[in-house]
Amino acid sequence: MTLHIGLLVFPGVQQLDLTGPHDVLASLPDAAVHLVWKSRDAVASSSGLALAPTCTFDDCPPLDVICIPGGIGINELLLDAETIAFVQQRAATARYVTSVCTGSLLLGVAGLLRGRRATTHWRFHSLLEPLGAIPVRERVVRDGNLVTGGGVTAGIDFALTIAAELVGDEEAQAIQLQLEYAPAPPFDAGSPDTAPAAVVTRVTERTAAGFAKRKQIVEQALRATSR
Amino acid sequence: MTLHIGLLVFPGVQQLDLTGPHDVLASLPDAAVHLVWKSRDAVASSSGLALAPTCTFDDCPPLDVICIPGGIGINELLLDAETIAFVQQRAATARYVTSVCTGSLLLGVAGLLRGRRATTHWRFHSLLEPLGAIPVRERVVRDGNLVTGGGVTAGIDFALTIAAELVGDEEAQAIQLQLEYAPAPPFDAGSPDTAPAAVVTRVTERTAAGFAKRKQIVEQALRATSR
Repeated sequence: MTLHIGLLVFPGVQQLDLTGPHDVLASLPDAAVHLVWKSRDAVASSSGLALAPTCTFDDCPPLDVICIPGGIGINELLLDAETIAFVQQRAATARYVTSVCTGSLLLGVAGLLRGRRATTHWRFHSLLEPLGAIPVRERVVRDGNLVTGGGVTAGIDFALTIAAELVGDEEAQAIQLQLEYAPAPPFDAGSPDTAPAAVVTRVTERTAAGFAKRKQIVEQALRATSR
Repeated sequence: MTLHIGLLVFPGVQQLDLTGPHDVLASLPDAAVHLVWKSRDAVASSSGLALAPTCTFDDCPPLDVICIPGGIGINELLLDAETIAFVQQRAATARYVTSVCTGSLLLGVAGLLRGRRATTHWRFHSLLEPLGAIPVRERVVRDGNLVTGGGVTAGIDFALTIAAELVGDEEAQAIQLQLEYAPAPPFDAGSPDTAPAAVVTRVTERTAAGFAKRKQIVEQALRATSR
């Protein structure tokens, strides 16, 4: 039986949040990976790369896995009743409810993180608690059928974890080998715990306005949903 | 001055070969990342995900970096005079001539690997020598202005290496931190040297027909260019 995996796609999605998991999950035997959005018109990701939805909220098949990637565009969705309703409906019947990066904030606004262990991009980790989650600083966090990944590139580790759940360790390892995923970053700067202090400062300052805005939007979204 | 980085896009490209480097390189300050192909019509990647070219062979600006990703679709290009000529022309004036995964085979057919150290996807590594390259089994291999990456996910390590060349270590580290690239694969199966023997056998057998076909195409391409 075909596994149906739905990745939300939207204007301003961080494309690697989506494309990393896509190449892993599309490698599963007998899986259909759908890019779901309100219409089939191509959207511009945060870097400008265009992504074309393959189905809409209305005609998307029942999903075994729903996955919400993150990116600057998630801000708008945190206040968008139509998208929140779609996520809630599909999460209710999916085997796995999942996210990469700041996609977990949308799960939070949809009420799906309450009392559950979850993660997100390190820069936005402090926004998990207001959403009722139990924040965990790990690359991939599983709590029952909820599986959340850290920032951007964590989507690849996340997807291999989900692949192993769906089809077993050996097939997941075969996918890893085909994608030659034996990472060797030229620097050890991928986490604020290991990056040089000057680099952490640079990124923290560069994202300060974006953090403040997103915090305000999360608060606004929480007021809207508690009404 | 804007850095112009051109990624070749084509039917059957392995999308993560392209999208991994794209998200890294699009994060560079003042860089324009182009997806170059014969026309602007969207192409289907090997997993089906559609990618839209942003410029054509004719109207692509002069490139600081040319990068050839790999994937099943590279086979057709190895025999395609128009694409080979485009790569040769652009490589002659680019600061960096680069590839990810089996994209290096196209560089080889274009005569750009002769006597130079290079890598490719592990499964196809034995095809480098017939193309005149000095095969090196490393994740990212640099020889002068030639920089080649290993299979698929090596594109991220490759792109951070190029980023550091272009704008310095600290900015490359900032990009790594923003993309939270602190990889933690759930298995140590990304290389044939570390994957369980049964997994290596599974992938080797699964790709045997594909390997034989590609080997034949490389031989055919070499006969065509030596004429």
